[in-house]
Amino acid sequence: MEENQSTPIINHFSAILRFKDQIDSPFDFENNYEELIKLLDLNVVKKFAHEFDPIGKTIIYVLSESHLSIHTWPEYKLLHLDLVTCKFIDKDKVEDSIKQSFQDKELANLSLKKHDI
Amino acid sequence: MEENQSTPIINHFSAILRFKDQIDSPFDFENNYEELIKLLDLNVVKKFAHEFDPIGKTIIYVLSESHLSIHTWPEYKLLHLDLVTCKFIDKDKVEDSIKQSFQDKELANLSLKKHDI
Repeated sequence: MEENQSTPIINHFSAILRFKDQIDSPFDFENNYEELIKLLDLNVVKKFAHEFDPIGKTIIYVLSESHLSIHTWPEYKLLHLDLVTCKFIDKDKVEDSIKQSFQDKELANLSLKKHDI
Repeated sequence: MEENQSTPIINHFSAILRFKDQIDSPFDFENNYEELIKLLDLNVVKKFAHEFDPIGKTIIYVLSESHLSIHTWPEYKLLHLDLVTCKFIDKDKVEDSIKQSFQDKELANLSLKKHDI
């Protein structure tokens, strides 16, 4: 859909982050997620967490600019990050911010996509 | 990222639904969302809602297969739907299910995308 005057700005990114080391479960990357939100200058209005049995965790931040959700797959040492914002954010800025916010973890691979709406 | 034995199945869809008529605010499409979830044979584990001031509403369903989030922009008569699942779902099935679940509303336009991860 083309952006025009009758369409809001919707920026949509998703990323797969794969880690070198086994991810503990339950584990906690919340500091990393919150650092990412801070670096992207987004604002959390609500935060929800759900732990799956036996492993895996979903955290969803409702933002005043839409949402950030993260699902983890500890058995694959990876997480899927999904960001929808009504604020323009440059893809390079998202990539740099992810790297910076996860710098205390050993990333094996980061695959980031910007999606057309 | 290629899907392989060390990557979970992640199906990612997003859609913009634009309606013919003015959307009331606060308004309620929850029956439509829940019909969609049922048609796609997904399972809700938690549901969260947040109303924005002055208008706009975010509803997020944590699914046992990941998440469905919906943000509304009543001022544009549209909503953005974001579905991430760890279950394979055919794009045509998603499109048909959206049309069927919103059949009591007058859709002006549906733009559905399947995203690579």
